[in-house]
Amino acid sequence: VTGTNPRASRKLPTSVDVARQAGVSQATVSRALNGGSVSAETRKRIIDLAAKLGYSRNAVARGLVMNRSGLIGVIVADITNPFYPELLEAIGARLDSIDHHMLVQNAAAGTEAEAAELLLQQRVDGIIFTTALRNSDSIQALVKRGFPVVLSNRVTDAPCDSVQGDNVAGASAAADLLVSLGHTRIATLKGSVDTSTSSQRSKGFAERLSQHGLALQPRFDLTCTFSYEAAYEATATLLARRWPPTAIFCHNDLMAFAAINAARGANFDVPGDLSIIGYDNVRQAAWESFNLTTVSQPVAEMAESAVRFLGERIADPERPPQGVVFPCELVVRGTTGPSRRGGR
Amino acid sequence: VTGTNPRASRKLPTSVDVARQAGVSQATVSRALNGGSVSAETRKRIIDLAAKLGYSRNAVARGLVMNRSGLIGVIVADITNPFYPELLEAIGARLDSIDHHMLVQNAAAGTEAEAAELLLQQRVDGIIFTTALRNSDSIQALVKRGFPVVLSNRVTDAPCDSVQGDNVAGASAAADLLVSLGHTRIATLKGSVDTSTSSQRSKGFAERLSQHGLALQPRFDLTCTFSYEAAYEATATLLARRWPPTAIFCHNDLMAFAAINAARGANFDVPGDLSIIGYDNVRQAAWESFNLTTVSQPVAEMAESAVRFLGERIADPERPPQGVVFPCELVVRGTTGPSRRGGR
Repeated sequence: VTGTNPRASRKLPTSVDVARQAGVSQATVSRALNGGSVSAETRKRIIDLAAKLGYSRNAVARGLVMNRSGLIGVIVADITNPFYPELLEAIGARLDSIDHHMLVQNAAAGTEAEAAELLLQQRVDGIIFTTALRNSDSIQALVKRGFPVVLSNRVTDAPCDSVQGDNVAGASAAADLLVSLGHTRIATLKGSVDTSTSSQRSKGFAERLSQHGLALQPRFDLTCTFSYEAAYEATATLLARRWPPTAIFCHNDLMAFAAINAARGANFDVPGDLSIIGYDNVRQAAWESFNLTTVSQPVAEMAESAVRFLGERIADPERPPQGVVFPCELVVRGTTGPSRRGGR
Repeated sequence: VTGTNPRASRKLPTSVDVARQAGVSQATVSRALNGGSVSAETRKRIIDLAAKLGYSRNAVARGLVMNRSGLIGVIVADITNPFYPELLEAIGARLDSIDHHMLVQNAAAGTEAEAAELLLQQRVDGIIFTTALRNSDSIQALVKRGFPVVLSNRVTDAPCDSVQGDNVAGASAAADLLVSLGHTRIATLKGSVDTSTSSQRSKGFAERLSQHGLALQPRFDLTCTFSYEAAYEATATLLARRWPPTAIFCHNDLMAFAAINAARGANFDVPGDLSIIGYDNVRQAAWESFNLTTVSQPVAEMAESAVRFLGERIADPERPPQGVVFPCELVVRGTTGPSRRGGR
C-alpha cells in the first residue's frame, strides 16, 4: 500500500495540518484556498505552505469523498470562432466566483457524445453544452440518468435546463432591416440545420420575408456549418453569379466576416454593392475594419444564467427543467445600406 | 461507508465487469474507452454499457491509484486574443492523440501563481504555461519540487523545458523591412516588458534599427500589455501628434489589428500614411480586411514540441531541461509600403 492508494487517504496531510503549521485556524486555511476573504499576504503564505506539505494535490481525494470534483465541463463547437472565447471567458469568470473550474472540450458538430464521455471520465459535476444537435442522444441519456446538464445557446428535444437568445425575433429584425432598405435579392448563409440556433434563425428570417411578400430563393439559401471557410466560398460563388444577391444574412459573425472578406476580394463595395448582417455581436464586429451590422446576444447574462441553472440542478437534481430566452437586439452599423435598385 | 468512499473502491465496477457484460475482452474495453483501434459500433456499445454501469465515472479513482489524472493544465493570458485559441486548438489536438486532456485556466499577467494552484488542486499531471513573467516565483517553485512544467512561447529564469520562436530574429526582420521602405519615424507597441517575448522582440527590433543608424525615440516606444484596447488608445494618441510615426511595429497581431482600426478611425490610409507590422500570423492576419504584414510563429510545431517535452518530463522527472527555438518568418502582405518622405 503506497501513499497514493486511496485507502491510505487518512495519512495524507489535511487542512488541520496546514492550519497548525501556519499558526491560523482551519477556517482561515479553507478561506485562503477557496478564494474567501483573507489578506493577500496570508493567502500567499498558506498556499505556499499547503504546496510544501503536498496538501493541495489531495483535493481530488477530498472531492471523491464528497462525491464532487469542483469541475464543470464546457463543450464548445469551435474555439477559434470568437463567439466561444467570449462565452468561455464569461462562463469561467462566473464559475471562478463560486469556486468551480472549467474543463473545456472542443467538439466538432456530431462529436458531443465523445466529448461528454471524456468529461464524465474526469468526473465533472455537470456539463454546459454550448453546442448540440437538436436530436442529441447523448444529452438525452445524460438527462435520463439525472446527470446535471445545461444547454447554453441551444435547445434539444431533451427536457433539460436551457439558456438561449430569441433567435426568431433576432432574425426577423434582420429581415425587416433589409426589406426596409429595399433589398429583394437576399441570400442567407446558415449554420447547421441540425442546431436549434440555425433552425430558429432560418425560420424567423424566412417567415418575416414572407410576411413582406418575399420568398427566399433556394439558390440563395446556403448551409455553411457556421464555418469561415464555407462562408467565404459560398459568398465568392454567389458574387460570381450573373445576378448576385444585394444582401446576405449570416447566422454568425464569423461567417459575416468571411462574407465581407470575400466581397472585398471580389471588389464588391460593402454596403454599396452588398449589404451584410451577422449574428452574435462579438467584440470584433464593432472594429472599424468591419463595422458590422449584427444581432447582439447578451453573452454575459447567458453565461450567468447557465452557471446558475447548473448550480441549482446540482443542488437539487429533482427540480423541473428551467428555460430562459433572452431578447436579442439588432445593432445597425456600417455594413448595411440601401439597395441599388438594379443591383450590381 | 457509502459507495463513493474511496475505501470502497473495490466494489466499483471495473473494466472486467464491462467486458463481461459486453462479451468482449478487457483489452477491447480499454481500447474502446481510450481511443484505441476498435470499430465505431463496438466503441459506441462499450461506451454506452460503461456509462450504464457507472464505470467511466471512476476514472479518477483509477487515476488516483496510478497517481495520474490524465489531465494537463494549460495557462493562457487572454483567451480572447486569437493567438491563444489557435494554440489551444493545436495543444488540445496533440493531447487528444495521446489520450490526455486539457484543463484551461485563463490568467491575466501576474496571476499565474493562482492559476497554477487551481490546476494543482485538480491534480493535473503537468502544466503548460503559455504566459509567464520572466521572474515567476511560482514556476521556480514548481520546477524545484520536480513538478512537470513546460513553457510555451515563453522563457523564465527557471531552468525548465521551453518552446519558443526566435523573437530576436523575427523582430530584426521587421526592422529590416521598415528601413528598406524608407521609414525613419518608427513606433513600437510592446507587450509587457516582464515577458520574454516582449523583451526579446524589443531587443531585436531596437538593435537592428541601431545597426541601420536609427534610434527608437522614447515617445514612440510604448508598452501596451498585448491588449487591444491599450494598443488602440496608443495608436490614436500617436496619430494625433503633429509629427506622427509613418510605421508601427506591434508585438502581436491583436495590437496590430487595433492599430489598423485606430488608423482607419482617424482617416489614415494603411499603408499609404502608415505602415503596420504585427507578430504571430494568426488566421485573421490573412483576411482581406487586414491583409497584415506580420511575423509568423509555427503554432502547430510549437504545440507539438510542448506536449512532447511535457510527456518526456512526466516519464522521466530527472532528465535535463530541453529547449527549442523555432525560426520565425516575416510574411509581407498589404499593410506595409514605402514611406512618403515628408510623412503625412
